[in-house]
Amino acid sequence: MVDFNKIIEFFETLNIPENMLKRGQLVLNEFMNPIKILFEQRSVPNKPWTDEQIEFLLQTLSNMDTDKDINAARVGEREGRIASKLHLRTSAGFCHGVGRSGFLTAPQPKAPGGSIMYELSNYLARNILRNTGLPNIKEAIVVPLCTGMSLSLALSALKFSKSERELNHKRTVLVPQVDHKSLLKAIDFAGFKAKIIPGQIFGDAVRIPIDDIKNHFDNDCFAIISITSFFPPREHDNIKEISKFAQEKNLVHIVINAYGVQSPEWMKLIRSAIDAGKIDAIIQSTDKNFLTPIGGAVIASPLKENITKISQAYAGRASATPIVNFLISMLSIGIKGYQKLLKEQQHNREILERKLREIAEKLNERILDIYNPVAVALSLQNLSEKKLYALGGALYNLRVTGPRVYNPKENPFGTCCSNYPTPYIVMNAAIGASEKDIISAVERFEKAYNQIE
Amino acid sequence: MVDFNKIIEFFETLNIPENMLKRGQLVLNEFMNPIKILFEQRSVPNKPWTDEQIEFLLQTLSNMDTDKDINAARVGEREGRIASKLHLRTSAGFCHGVGRSGFLTAPQPKAPGGSIMYELSNYLARNILRNTGLPNIKEAIVVPLCTGMSLSLALSALKFSKSERELNHKRTVLVPQVDHKSLLKAIDFAGFKAKIIPGQIFGDAVRIPIDDIKNHFDNDCFAIISITSFFPPREHDNIKEISKFAQEKNLVHIVINAYGVQSPEWMKLIRSAIDAGKIDAIIQSTDKNFLTPIGGAVIASPLKENITKISQAYAGRASATPIVNFLISMLSIGIKGYQKLLKEQQHNREILERKLREIAEKLNERILDIYNPVAVALSLQNLSEKKLYALGGALYNLRVTGPRVYNPKENPFGTCCSNYPTPYIVMNAAIGASEKDIISAVERFEKAYNQIE
Amino acid sequence: MVDFNKIIEFFETLNIPENMLKRGQLVLNEFMNPIKILFEQRSVPNKPWTDEQIEFLLQTLSNMDTDKDINAARVGEREGRIASKLHLRTSAGFCHGVGRSGFLTAPQPKAPGGSIMYELSNYLARNILRNTGLPNIKEAIVVPLCTGMSLSLALSALKFSKSERELNHKRTVLVPQVDHKSLLKAIDFAGFKAKIIPGQIFGDAVRIPIDDIKNHFDNDCFAIISITSFFPPREHDNIKEISKFAQEKNLVHIVINAYGVQSPEWMKLIRSAIDAGKIDAIIQSTDKNFLTPIGGAVIASPLKENITKISQAYAGRASATPIVNFLISMLSIGIKGYQKLLKEQQHNREILERKLREIAEKLNERILDIYNPVAVALSLQNLSEKKLYALGGALYNLRVTGPRVYNPKENPFGTCCSNYPTPYIVMNAAIGASEKDIISAVERFEKAYNQIE
Amino acid sequence: MVDFNKIIEFFETLNIPENMLKRGQLVLNEFMNPIKILFEQRSVPNKPWTDEQIEFLLQTLSNMDTDKDINAARVGEREGRIASKLHLRTSAGFCHGVGRSGFLTAPQPKAPGGSIMYELSNYLARNILRNTGLPNIKEAIVVPLCTGMSLSLALSALKFSKSERELNHKRTVLVPQVDHKSLLKAIDFAGFKAKIIPGQIFGDAVRIPIDDIKNHFDNDCFAIISITSFFPPREHDNIKEISKFAQEKNLVHIVINAYGVQSPEWMKLIRSAIDAGKIDAIIQSTDKNFLTPIGGAVIASPLKENITKISQAYAGRASATPIVNFLISMLSIGIKGYQKLLKEQQHNREILERKLREIAEKLNERILDIYNPVAVALSLQNLSEKKLYALGGALYNLRVTGPRVYNPKENPFGTCCSNYPTPYIVMNAAIGASEKDIISAVERFEKAYNQIE
Repeated sequence: MVDFNKIIEFFETLNIPENMLKRGQLVLNEFMNPIKILFEQRSVPNKPWTDEQIEFLLQTLSNMDTDKDINAARVGEREGRIASKLHLRTSAGFCHGVGRSGFLTAPQPKAPGGSIMYELSNYLARNILRNTGLPNIKEAIVVPLCTGMSLSLALSALKFSKSERELNHKRTVLVPQVDHKSLLKAIDFAGFKAKIIPGQIFGDAVRIPIDDIKNHFDNDCFAIISITSFFPPREHDNIKEISKFAQEKNLVHIVINAYGVQSPEWMKLIRSAIDAGKIDAIIQSTDKNFLTPIGGAVIASPLKENITKISQAYAGRASATPIVNFLISMLSIGIKGYQKLLKEQQHNREILERKLREIAEKLNERILDIYNPVAVALSLQNLSEKKLYALGGALYNLRVTGPRVYNPKENPFGTCCSNYPTPYIVMNAAIGASEKDIISAVERFEKAYNQIE
Repeated sequence: MVDFNKIIEFFETLNIPENMLKRGQLVLNEFMNPIKILFEQRSVPNKPWTDEQIEFLLQTLSNMDTDKDINAARVGEREGRIASKLHLRTSAGFCHGVGRSGFLTAPQPKAPGGSIMYELSNYLARNILRNTGLPNIKEAIVVPLCTGMSLSLALSALKFSKSERELNHKRTVLVPQVDHKSLLKAIDFAGFKAKIIPGQIFGDAVRIPIDDIKNHFDNDCFAIISITSFFPPREHDNIKEISKFAQEKNLVHIVINAYGVQSPEWMKLIRSAIDAGKIDAIIQSTDKNFLTPIGGAVIASPLKENITKISQAYAGRASATPIVNFLISMLSIGIKGYQKLLKEQQHNREILERKLREIAEKLNERILDIYNPVAVALSLQNLSEKKLYALGGALYNLRVTGPRVYNPKENPFGTCCSNYPTPYIVMNAAIGASEKDIISAVERFEKAYNQIE
Repeated sequence: MVDFNKIIEFFETLNIPENMLKRGQLVLNEFMNPIKILFEQRSVPNKPWTDEQIEFLLQTLSNMDTDKDINAARVGEREGRIASKLHLRTSAGFCHGVGRSGFLTAPQPKAPGGSIMYELSNYLARNILRNTGLPNIKEAIVVPLCTGMSLSLALSALKFSKSERELNHKRTVLVPQVDHKSLLKAIDFAGFKAKIIPGQIFGDAVRIPIDDIKNHFDNDCFAIISITSFFPPREHDNIKEISKFAQEKNLVHIVINAYGVQSPEWMKLIRSAIDAGKIDAIIQSTDKNFLTPIGGAVIASPLKENITKISQAYAGRASATPIVNFLISMLSIGIKGYQKLLKEQQHNREILERKLREIAEKLNERILDIYNPVAVALSLQNLSEKKLYALGGALYNLRVTGPRVYNPKENPFGTCCSNYPTPYIVMNAAIGASEKDIISAVERFEKAYNQIE
Repeated sequence: MVDFNKIIEFFETLNIPENMLKRGQLVLNEFMNPIKILFEQRSVPNKPWTDEQIEFLLQTLSNMDTDKDINAARVGEREGRIASKLHLRTSAGFCHGVGRSGFLTAPQPKAPGGSIMYELSNYLARNILRNTGLPNIKEAIVVPLCTGMSLSLALSALKFSKSERELNHKRTVLVPQVDHKSLLKAIDFAGFKAKIIPGQIFGDAVRIPIDDIKNHFDNDCFAIISITSFFPPREHDNIKEISKFAQEKNLVHIVINAYGVQSPEWMKLIRSAIDAGKIDAIIQSTDKNFLTPIGGAVIASPLKENITKISQAYAGRASATPIVNFLISMLSIGIKGYQKLLKEQQHNREILERKLREIAEKLNERILDIYNPVAVALSLQNLSEKKLYALGGALYNLRVTGPRVYNPKENPFGTCCSNYPTPYIVMNAAIGASEKDIISAVERFEKAYNQIE
C-alpha cells in the first residue's frame, strides 16, 4: 500500500513552514477521516459526506480493479475494457460490474475494489434498515434490479427447499389483491402463477381480510406476498397475521415494502411481523426510499441464508451502477440527513392533507378515509366521465407529475377490488418532495379541475 | 424549442467581426452536425464522436426529463429525485431509468428525453448488428441485464404462445451441453428445467451432434438454446440444423451469441440459420462485444413481435445506465472504429496462436485443434495435478487475467463433456485487447509454467 | 448555425407521444431560456443559473473557438494546442486566453467564442457595479490580474496624455498612507515613485487630512490614489475631496476599492466623488467582492476611453480563467443572490461587533471607534509583547484564518501611521462569510487569548 | 496524515480473499507510485501520467488548503470563498491562488497545498529546461503571466542594483529590432524606454549586427533584450556576443525565448551564451512550448537571486491556474513524451519546407534563405498588392490559422527592418502541430493563392 506518510515526509523537505504543513495535514485529515470511520464502523455515517469525499472513496476503490492495472496482461473475453472514458463516469470506475458466475456477492477476482465497494454497500443497507425500524433483520443486499425483478429473484431463489437445487414443484403464489402490473409480471417472470385474493371495501378503504387469504390456500401454494406502501384506497396488508399464517403453512413470505422505509408506521408493521411469524424477504426500492436514480432495490431478511440464496440466483454479472448509487445516497445523506428527510415527509404529508381538505370543501368533494402515511386520496364524484378522463392529461400539461386519477367505472384495475364506488385522485407527499411541490400541485389540481371541459 | 439562430443574432450585435463570427458558427456547426445526422439516419455514425459531442447529446436529452423541470410539481412516490449531484453522472442525467410498468420500451411520460435516448439506442443496436453480419434481423433492444438474465427474460417472454398471457405448460428447455453456470441459472430463474444433451469428443473438439439433440426432444420441450462463442474445447453449435429442427418442432430457439459479434464467422452461422429455419432471439453482451462496463445485453430477432414481447416481460422500471453505456460505445467507436477493432482482433488472434505454438514446442505441449476465432487452447499434459492446480493462481499473481486452466480429472465442468482426456489452458484474443496484452500474457504464462512447484 | 428545431422534427418521427414531446421541449426551453435572455439583456441575471446552464453556455461558446475545429489547419506557433484534456477544465475550454497583441478586449480571430465570452463578461461587470452603487460608470473591464497589478496596468495606461504613446515625464504618485505591500509594489512595478502622505490619528481612527495631501503635491506628481476598503485603524479616504483636487490639478485619480463593492456606504462615497470631480479608474477584486478564486479584478471608469487605454496596455495575451470565473460567479449568484449576500454581510458585521464587544468587556479591552462596514478592531492593551507575538500563531493553529494582530511597537507597518498607541486585532465579516465563521472565530479568539503564555 | 494502511487493515476484515486484496493493493500502488517518485525526485516524470493520477495529486494537494477546512473559522476579507463549485474546476481546487503580499513563491498560510503545488511546479520548470538544453540554469519560476508581462516583471525586478529597493535611475532598454507589439508594450509598461537598433538585410535574412548594438549604447542604458524564436525574415540574435557585451557594460540581459524550448539549436545558443557572458533571465511561454492554455511563462536564470527578486516584484496574489496548467502539461507529457514531440516537430518542419518548396516551383516563387528551426518563409513576389491584401482573409476563411502574410510596402512592421524588398508568407511547424496540419495548410494556401482576385 502506498504510504501517505512518506509523501508528507517529502513535503517537509520543501520550504513550506512546519506549522503550515501541519495545518495542511489537519485539513486533509478532516477530509479523510470519514473514510477511515466508514471502514471501521461499516455503517451509514452520521453526517453527510461532501461530493469530493465520496468521489475520493469511489476513485480509490475503483483504482484497485485490474482494468486499471497498466501492467496487467488481460486475455479474457470480459476484462472491463471500455470504448470511452465516459464509461468511467457512468460506472463510477467499476467497469467489472458486480458478481461472479451469477453469485452477486462473491468477490470478483478482476475487481478487488468493486468487491469491497459492494460488500460495504450491503453493510450500509443492513445498517440503514436497522436504523429505520427493522433492528431484527440479519442481512441485506443491494441488487441492481427494480422492486419487481427483485421479487422474481427472491421467489426464484427461495423456491428450493434444500441447498441442492432441487426444484420445488409447487407453483402458486398467494397475492392479496394488489393492482400493480410489475408485481404480477414478476411472479410470472419466475414461472409462477399468482392466485389473487380479491380486495374488499371497508368504508373508503380496500383491505384483504386474513380469512379470505386463508381460504385461498391450497397445496400448490408455496409462497405469499404482502405489502406495506401502496396507493389508496388499498391499505397495507395485515402483515403480522400473514406472517403467522406463513409460518403455519411453511410458505415463503415476501414483503413488498416498495417505498415503505420512509414511514416508521409501516416499518413497525414489518418489525412485529418478523417477530410474530415468518418473513423471508423484505424488498424496498432504492430510488423511492433513498433518492437514487431508478434501478436498484434492497432485499433484507431476518435469515442470513435467505440472502445468500438470493445473491446466488442472479444469472450473471450485473451493472455496478445501482449499487454505487445506493452507496452515494447513503454517504451523501447520512443518518441525520435521513432523519431530517423523514421529518420533512411527515410535515409535507400533513400539508398535503390540509390543502386537499380545503379544496375538497370548495369542490364539494371529500378526503377518503384511508390509512396511508404518504398518500392522500380525494373523491371526484362531481366530475363527468369525460372530465375524469381529461383530468390526468390536464395535470400533466400543467407540469404536475405523479397524481393518479381513477375512474373505477372505466377501469377497476388500480382500485384493488371489483366494485369501488367512487372516482378519486391520489397524491403523494413522498420522501424528498418539497413543500413547494405539494402546494403547487394542489393549486394546479384546482386549476385543472375548473378548467377541463 | 430554443432557437439557436436567435442567439447568433445577438452575437452579431456584439463587436465581433463578421468573418470571425462566421468562423465560430462554422466550428460550432461542425460540432453539432453529427447530432443532426444521428437523428436523421438513426444509425451508428461512420466516424467516432468526441466525448464532448456525446456529452452534449446526453445533456440535451436528459434536460428534457421532468425531474429537471424547476417549475414542475412532483407528487408521485417516484419522481427521479436524487440525493446527490453525483447521481447525475452515474445515470448520465437519466434518473428516471427506462420503462413504464414493466414495458421497457414504452415511452415514460416523466422522461421524454430518456425515452428518446432509449429508442435511439435500440435503433443503433439493430443497425450495428445488421452491419456486422445479421442483415436479416428485424428489431433489436438493449436491455439493462447481462446475457444470462436476458435469456431468462427472453424465455419468460416467449413462453406464451398467444398475445394473451396464457401460460404454456411445457417447461423443458433443450440445452446442448454448455458448462456455464449463468446460463443454467438463467433457465432455472425463469422456472424452467434444462435438459442437457451431453457433449461428445471429436478429435480435440467437443461438439453436440444434431442427432443427439433430436433424440432428447420430448413433448414437454418448448425451447432450445444454441451457442456461438464459447471456450475450447467446446465448439459453436450447428446452429443451422438446430434452427431447422426448431422450426420443425415449433420450439422457441434462442441463440446465445455472448461475445460473437466480434467474429464475422460466428455471425455468418446465425445469418444463414435465420434464413434456414427458426430463430426467435439472439442475445449478445454489450460489454464483451461493444466495450461497455458490465451490465447490458442486446437482444435481436428476425421477428418484430418477439422483441415487443420481450420488452414487456421486464417486471418494472430499470436503470438507464446500461442503455446509455451502449449508446456511448456506439457513438465513440463508430462503424469505422468497429471495423478497425475487428481487424485488430483478427490480428491479435493470429499472434496469440503463433506465440502459443512457439511455447508449445518448447514445453512439448500442443495447440488443441479446435475451431474458435477468439480463443486458443494449449494442452498441459506435462504438468502434475499439483502444478495444474497452482497454475491459475500463479498467473493471477503475475497479473494475467482471463486465462482458464482446466484439469478435467479434477472437475469436468467447463469441458462440456464427461471424459475430456487432456488438461489445457485457454486464452482469448478478444475485441479490445491489445497486442501487448497477448504477448505479455504468453510470456508470463511461460514464466508461471516454469516457476510453479 | 445548427437548427435545434430540426432535431425536434426528428424526435417527432420517433414513437414518443406528442404531449410528452411537448413536455420535453418545455423543460428544455426552461433550461435554455436564461441563455437567450442573457444575450438579449447583457446583464447579470436576476435569478441564479444552475451549474448545468452555466456549463452549457461555456461549452457552446468555447466550441466556437478554432482549436476545436477538427478541419482546421493550424500552422501558427500559438494555436491553443493542449497536452491534456484536463486543460479544458481549467480553462473552461477557452485555451486561447483573451486579448490580441496586448489589446485585451480586441476580438481574437482564433477564438470567436472566447471573444464573445469576454465581451459578455465586461457587460456584466459594468452592470453589477451599476447595480451596486455606481450608476455613473460608463465602462468596465474584467482583467486577469489582481488588484495590485491592475493598479500598475491602470497607471501605466493612463500615463500618456495623448493617444500617441508619448511618455509623460512626471513620475510621482501621491499615496495617502496605506500600509499594503502590493499597492506599493504596483506603483514601483510600473516605474513610478510613491509619495506617501502620512496618516494621522483621530481618536482611534487613522485618516489622511486632505490638506496634508494638497501640501504634498509638486510638479512631478501625475497621479493620486485613494482607497475605500481597508483595515482598521485606517479609515477610507475622503474620496470626494481627493476627486476635486485631482480635477483641479489634472491628476490621474485611481480608486482602490479592493473589497468595497460589498458595502453600499463605500460605493456611495465613490459615486458622489465621480460626480464631484475626477476619477479615472476604480479597481475592485473579483475574489473579494464576487467570490471567485483569486486572480482577477474589475476596472471601471466614468470615461469609456480610459478603459480602452487600459485594455491596450497589457503586454500580450492572458489566461481566460479569471474572466470565466467572474462570469461563473455572476451567473451562479444573480442579482437577487448578490442582494442576499449583502444582507448577510451586514447581519454578520453586526454579530461580529456584538460578540467582540462582549469579549471586550470580559477582557477589559474595548472595540476601537473606527468606521468600517466590514471589519471590527479590538484593543489588546492588556497583553504582554510576548503574548501579542504568540497570538497570531495560536489563532492559526486553532484554525482561525484572516484576523490580523498588530503590535505598533513591534512594527508600525499596517497601522498607516507612525505612532499608533494601541495594539489591536482586526476581524472581518466579509461577503460570503457565514455566521458560524464569525461566532466560532470570536470564541476561538477568546480561547487563544486565555491560552497563550 | 491519514494512514492508508489502516484502511487496508479494515479491507482485510471483509470477506475478500487475501490474494485478491493483494492484487488490488498492487494496482493501487501502481497508481500511486508515480506520485511518490515525483515527491522524491521533483523532476518531470519519465513516462506520462494518466489524467486520473494527475487529478488525484491535484485533489490531494488542494484538499490541504484552508478553504476546504469545514472546521475553520474564516474572518479575513479574502478566504478563497467561492460562489460555485464550478470554480473548483477552473482553479483545480486552488482557490487561494499563488503568492503572499506580492511575493509569488512565498508559502501562503491559507494554502499549504497550493504552496506545495507551486514549489513543485517550479522544480519541474527548472528540470525540463535543464533537460532540454540549459543545464546551466540555477532556478526557474512559473509565472501566471504571458511572455510580454514576464518581461515587464523581470525588468521591473532587476532594475534595482541592490537588495534595498533603491531605484536605478537609468531607464533605457536596448532592443535589437523585433517587431512585436507585446514586447514593446512590456518595456513601456514597466516605465522604460526602448532604444531600438534597426535590423539589416543579409541576403534574405534580417539580423542586427553586434557592432550596431554596441554603437547604440549610452549611459542611460540599463538593460538589453535578445531573442531566439521569431518569424522570418528576422533571425535569432547573436546571443553570445550580446551576453559578452552585457557583462562588459554590466547590463541586465534578458533573453526572450518565447517558443524556443522546442528547438535544441536555439537552446544551445542560450546555453553557450550563459557560459560566455551575462544572462539574467530567460523567458519562455508555457503554451507555446508546453501545450498549456494561454496565460503563463517560465522565467529561468543562471542566478538564483534573480529569480527571488522576480518572484517578489509581482504586486499581489495571482491566479493559480497558469501554474497548475504547467504542472498538468509536465505530468501528462513526461520526458519521453516531450522528446517525442520534439522529434515530430523536426519531422514536420522538414515536411513544411519540402511541401512549400514544391509549391514555390509551381508558382515561380522561392523559399527564403533564412535560418529558423520552426518557421519557413515563401516569397510572394508575383502577387499584386490587392491579392497580397486578400490572401490572409482567404486563408482564414479556408480555416487555416497561423500563417502571416507580409507586404513590406504596405507596412514594414513585422519585417524588423525598414526596407525589406520581398512580400512573403510565413508558416510554422511548431511543437504539437500534426503532419496533417502542415500538409493541409500548404494545400489550402495553394488553393487560396489561385483563388483570390
